[in-house]
Amino acid sequence: MKNNFGTNISMTIFGESHGPCIGITLDGLPSGFKINLERIKEDMEKRKAKGSISTQRHEDDEVEIISGFFNGYTTGTSLTILIQNKNTQSKDYSDIQYRLRPGHADFSAYEKYHGFQDYRGGGHFSGRLTAPIVAAGSICRQILETKNILIGSHIEQLYALHDAPFSNHIDELKKQIQTLNKKEFATLDEQVAQNMEQAILEAKNEQDSIGGILESAIINLPAGIGEPFFDSIESILAHLLFSIPAVKGVSFGAGFQMASKKGSEANDAFIMNDIIQTKTNNNGGINGGISNGMPIIIHTCIKPTPSIYKTQETVDYKTKESQTLNIKGRHDPCILHRARIVVDSMIAFGILDLLMSSNANNILEKEIQHES
Amino acid sequence: MKNNFGTNISMTIFGESHGPCIGITLDGLPSGFKINLERIKEDMEKRKAKGSISTQRHEDDEVEIISGFFNGYTTGTSLTILIQNKNTQSKDYSDIQYRLRPGHADFSAYEKYHGFQDYRGGGHFSGRLTAPIVAAGSICRQILETKNILIGSHIEQLYALHDAPFSNHIDELKKQIQTLNKKEFATLDEQVAQNMEQAILEAKNEQDSIGGILESAIINLPAGIGEPFFDSIESILAHLLFSIPAVKGVSFGAGFQMASKKGSEANDAFIMNDIIQTKTNNNGGINGGISNGMPIIIHTCIKPTPSIYKTQETVDYKTKESQTLNIKGRHDPCILHRARIVVDSMIAFGILDLLMSSNANNILEKEIQHES
Amino acid sequence: MKNNFGTNISMTIFGESHGPCIGITLDGLPSGFKINLERIKEDMEKRKAKGSISTQRHEDDEVEIISGFFNGYTTGTSLTILIQNKNTQSKDYSDIQYRLRPGHADFSAYEKYHGFQDYRGGGHFSGRLTAPIVAAGSICRQILETKNILIGSHIEQLYALHDAPFSNHIDELKKQIQTLNKKEFATLDEQVAQNMEQAILEAKNEQDSIGGILESAIINLPAGIGEPFFDSIESILAHLLFSIPAVKGVSFGAGFQMASKKGSEANDAFIMNDIIQTKTNNNGGINGGISNGMPIIIHTCIKPTPSIYKTQETVDYKTKESQTLNIKGRHDPCILHRARIVVDSMIAFGILDLLMSSNANNILEKEIQHES
Amino acid sequence: MKNNFGTNISMTIFGESHGPCIGITLDGLPSGFKINLERIKEDMEKRKAKGSISTQRHEDDEVEIISGFFNGYTTGTSLTILIQNKNTQSKDYSDIQYRLRPGHADFSAYEKYHGFQDYRGGGHFSGRLTAPIVAAGSICRQILETKNILIGSHIEQLYALHDAPFSNHIDELKKQIQTLNKKEFATLDEQVAQNMEQAILEAKNEQDSIGGILESAIINLPAGIGEPFFDSIESILAHLLFSIPAVKGVSFGAGFQMASKKGSEANDAFIMNDIIQTKTNNNGGINGGISNGMPIIIHTCIKPTPSIYKTQETVDYKTKESQTLNIKGRHDPCILHRARIVVDSMIAFGILDLLMSSNANNILEKEIQHES
Repeated sequence: MKNNFGTNISMTIFGESHGPCIGITLDGLPSGFKINLERIKEDMEKRKAKGSISTQRHEDDEVEIISGFFNGYTTGTSLTILIQNKNTQSKDYSDIQYRLRPGHADFSAYEKYHGFQDYRGGGHFSGRLTAPIVAAGSICRQILETKNILIGSHIEQLYALHDAPFSNHIDELKKQIQTLNKKEFATLDEQVAQNMEQAILEAKNEQDSIGGILESAIINLPAGIGEPFFDSIESILAHLLFSIPAVKGVSFGAGFQMASKKGSEANDAFIMNDIIQTKTNNNGGINGGISNGMPIIIHTCIKPTPSIYKTQETVDYKTKESQTLNIKGRHDPCILHRARIVVDSMIAFGILDLLMSSNANNILEKEIQHES
Repeated sequence: MKNNFGTNISMTIFGESHGPCIGITLDGLPSGFKINLERIKEDMEKRKAKGSISTQRHEDDEVEIISGFFNGYTTGTSLTILIQNKNTQSKDYSDIQYRLRPGHADFSAYEKYHGFQDYRGGGHFSGRLTAPIVAAGSICRQILETKNILIGSHIEQLYALHDAPFSNHIDELKKQIQTLNKKEFATLDEQVAQNMEQAILEAKNEQDSIGGILESAIINLPAGIGEPFFDSIESILAHLLFSIPAVKGVSFGAGFQMASKKGSEANDAFIMNDIIQTKTNNNGGINGGISNGMPIIIHTCIKPTPSIYKTQETVDYKTKESQTLNIKGRHDPCILHRARIVVDSMIAFGILDLLMSSNANNILEKEIQHES
Repeated sequence: MKNNFGTNISMTIFGESHGPCIGITLDGLPSGFKINLERIKEDMEKRKAKGSISTQRHEDDEVEIISGFFNGYTTGTSLTILIQNKNTQSKDYSDIQYRLRPGHADFSAYEKYHGFQDYRGGGHFSGRLTAPIVAAGSICRQILETKNILIGSHIEQLYALHDAPFSNHIDELKKQIQTLNKKEFATLDEQVAQNMEQAILEAKNEQDSIGGILESAIINLPAGIGEPFFDSIESILAHLLFSIPAVKGVSFGAGFQMASKKGSEANDAFIMNDIIQTKTNNNGGINGGISNGMPIIIHTCIKPTPSIYKTQETVDYKTKESQTLNIKGRHDPCILHRARIVVDSMIAFGILDLLMSSNANNILEKEIQHES
Repeated sequence: MKNNFGTNISMTIFGESHGPCIGITLDGLPSGFKINLERIKEDMEKRKAKGSISTQRHEDDEVEIISGFFNGYTTGTSLTILIQNKNTQSKDYSDIQYRLRPGHADFSAYEKYHGFQDYRGGGHFSGRLTAPIVAAGSICRQILETKNILIGSHIEQLYALHDAPFSNHIDELKKQIQTLNKKEFATLDEQVAQNMEQAILEAKNEQDSIGGILESAIINLPAGIGEPFFDSIESILAHLLFSIPAVKGVSFGAGFQMASKKGSEANDAFIMNDIIQTKTNNNGGINGGISNGMPIIIHTCIKPTPSIYKTQETVDYKTKESQTLNIKGRHDPCILHRARIVVDSMIAFGILDLLMSSNANNILEKEIQHES
């Protein structure tokens, strides 16, 4: 469904970049969960544009919960979050209304909506729509954390620069995730972070932009979550991640490197620690669409921001004439560092929904133990 | 939903590798479509195990349509396809029932289903379940072809070997797709095909397996299909592709290479031919989740078959003791060439559903032209 | 899904009676539809509490569209409507927080939400939640009217009083619907209206309440809309109508009177006018779940308002002690006249969704005419 | 979705009256449930045409489970049931192919499917499609019974005859349900049963048909199941019940009689027994869409069978000429007694799905007890 996703919990998103506000409705949350509002703020901070490496459109992104929340707890009814759009400069867009911005949805939106779309600042296509997703994702993560399930992401690659890898040791990985979740520019290696920020500034100086890859880990997800086919962990998470504007690739575990491995290398041998685990984790914690108890590893490729100041070739949608385009306005030379928490949020939502489906299915737990 | 997917058309899959039969229900098809049964057979042939490069389990995979089909035409009601399982050797599995096969879903299935799963031949997790998907996909492709929408895939990479690329010229690409759709081992370069088949035999001789990457193209999909968020072309197709067993990565257009590009390289400049097009196609025909009229380009990474004859380390699920495992039975040293038509089928289903959603939305076409 | 319904268009509702606001998101609307805001206001007026026959809680119910609407037209993205709650007197509820109001959801809500529900004014269960449904329904009706599809309802029965019936002649019925759609107290017979208002005042004076039955008609719905099973017109409309608080019965055509008819009386003979029609309309315009071109006739039974001022027996949920209860606050002695437009709105939404599904399915219209 | 319904469990139905077979796929069942196949047979017997009061088309309706079932237990994957059509006499239909049968879906099907529908024996519209629903419903009921949740129905009214009412005492009601579940002609009063069978024979002798009302009860459903809006118990059950061919009305508790009650009569006072209960049950065990622990009471009105032997007026769809019609073939003079188990089955499916949704939502049960 267009702006709605999920089975046991669902989210519905709405709003445009330059409309009065944007928002999200989370439906199906359990009642009686104490939401940590401070934590939502912290997560919102991670998405905020700050300093010279991000756009100069600064929004305070104050989160207002207008339903489903009473006396500090979820009520169990649909929970709607609103975020006002305050710092909009719509006139930046009127003069390029028909000049199609390369890499953006301008042309495909014209074809789909016949010119009725809100073209200002990308309208409904804007990355701004991800702000309420972060607020909703924060609630989902808080719920998952009561089950010890942690999610964290780092910038695995930014243009030519690579971060240190996630640890193979679960205790060390847990610490890495906890550290990442306190950072605003999420790398495992501090020095790499500085180099990456420098690379973003260079791209900005060149009136250009850059992208990269985020690597995410989920730990302590019990084995047995997910389904063989359309509710496979991969299917659900990929569906959500590809809904984030600018994502062009998603892979799990060794991902596309699986193509260059033999079966004997790719297969993760089972070993006995206290519990059954795998020696390697090429499958990224997922076999047959279902968790195997190892960390879930996800790679999300985000293209360079399409809004660049360099002169670009384009066409005017109305006159059908070739044009050159100089984008004005305020834009991000890179969105990778801000997209990180959006990726975390989408993952949190998907995992919570899969957990709830699994819970639904345990309806006969006691009876089954009798039978078998 | 677990074994069901789709909005305007949906598919529901059922069956196990060693059960009496496997099948699929396609719901929501238009009535009055004349199904070309010969074409279904041809598509089924592409998935069949043949020769020494595939498993020796040979199934005739005869497709039986038991509902929704009358006098050669679709009736418009749910159409169910059955395929019998004939060549099963279930005893191959009983002695390894508890010895978890690395890379397979054995362990995660035990954790999920508490031992009640049909473990024979992978049960419901088996690639065999993709046979009815091919039959259903064939019907979807036939419908798309009445709209001139063509889908084709080739083996872009098989282990260390790479095929020639898709052409950038639409007419040439069309010919390539038409040629691919007649081939059983789908490469653009004939010599590469021979080398790839050789590489599969080598892997087989080593008692090992290999995987690779499929590249798919959709042509003549009108601009304006898809949605900004959860029904983005990327979200829907990735959801479907990740439901195919062994898929570990999906990307669109330049995919993960987007991470190493600058915005000025990645952006596809708009140019005026007879219609508005883009100069390059790094975005794989999709902007903001919506088609832009250029070919849709998809990459699907398939891991090496987990069933290998080499001795592997594992654990016995019941005794929790470490074990070695020698898989017997009949297995594919590579499934890439057979998976090709499954990928085509999933794509066809997804695109047809998105087209129907777009059709649904055109309810006011005439009225809107009045208004604006 | 809990607070979400629909296939091609969907609605998601949120809010509580005494929260800051209530609202709805309509997703899947076509782009480029010019919304008549004045018409929304008129429809909202029909639901408003007015005069002595309704509650004294007066809300201005100003409708604010915060997304999916640009320059007077729908954009085609999710359209969210907010309505502020202004006239709340929450203290009326605090002293009866645990004293379960008979006929209300207090007890079942405690059992479901474990006490975390917003108990003020019925919270999420309040009839107040139907205000945004009316706004959304008004948009749906406006769209349907471009197709000449009209919907209208009258108070068929209020306690012991019965209105005149709908006409059997389509032209007359059309006039009746048009007249009803201008009325705030919707009866076909003016005198009956006065008697009914009198009956409501009498119930009010007795500190009691009354209910009744609404009869709705849809005209000009083309034959062939709907599905044999789960998307039957009856299934979809009943699902929506039973989501309105206080509805306890839904029937179509002759409804429960079908039980006392013989087949020879109940069957609607086909006759040839300019087009094929039926002589009678016991089936309410629906055969096999699908429209037959005759007016769709629906009956919706609404129970008497559970909030009455008379002393009632109850139990305190906390102390588990028997109690007497005197409900205070402001309440409706009858909601039938206000519920009418809510019923119209639900019907409009359901019919629009079914029409869009039908449109989706016509994807091959031209090709099929070739074939057959 | 057309032939698919459900959230945590779903059913997908397929087949036509005169096709090779009909069937259903139940998806989302828990694994490890031991299915009592004998019980399925018993339930199928209740739907079978027997004796002179039903059609002479006798099908053995042998149920074949072809997936999702292994060694006597559910596997947790999609479970498909097939039932062969054996006793078909398709030639009975060819000569009336275009003569529209009054009360049937012939005309609406022509308009929807443009003549491509399988017209033989009602095709996909046939009551025959309910046979697999009974098999699936039997499995759902077996699962509910492990939770002590029992469902039973009786023929409340058949034409002019009325059965004795359900008891207001839960223990007595339980016995009534258990007795009903052993009967093939389900009345509480034995004498009434004989009179009803007599009335059916009389209608048959008159070449006519009759219908009536089924009353169903669900006991031991815990309080707190269901949702305020679109997943209200009423919405879900009505959706399912209106999907049964020939159902024209559904109501809960006092149903349409609510229209003639005052609030002080209609409200069910809360009283303290060992647990909180209500003194009366006009609301049929449901407040605000959610169970209150009292028996759920449902009324389903089924119209007289449209196939009657009496001469009827109609129109030929092809020639558009007025015609008389004498239906041949084998038909039921009444389907109420056979529909009873179909109603039970739909209810069982809906309640199981709602229970599973409730289970999904209890994900934080322990954590919440900590918090509050």
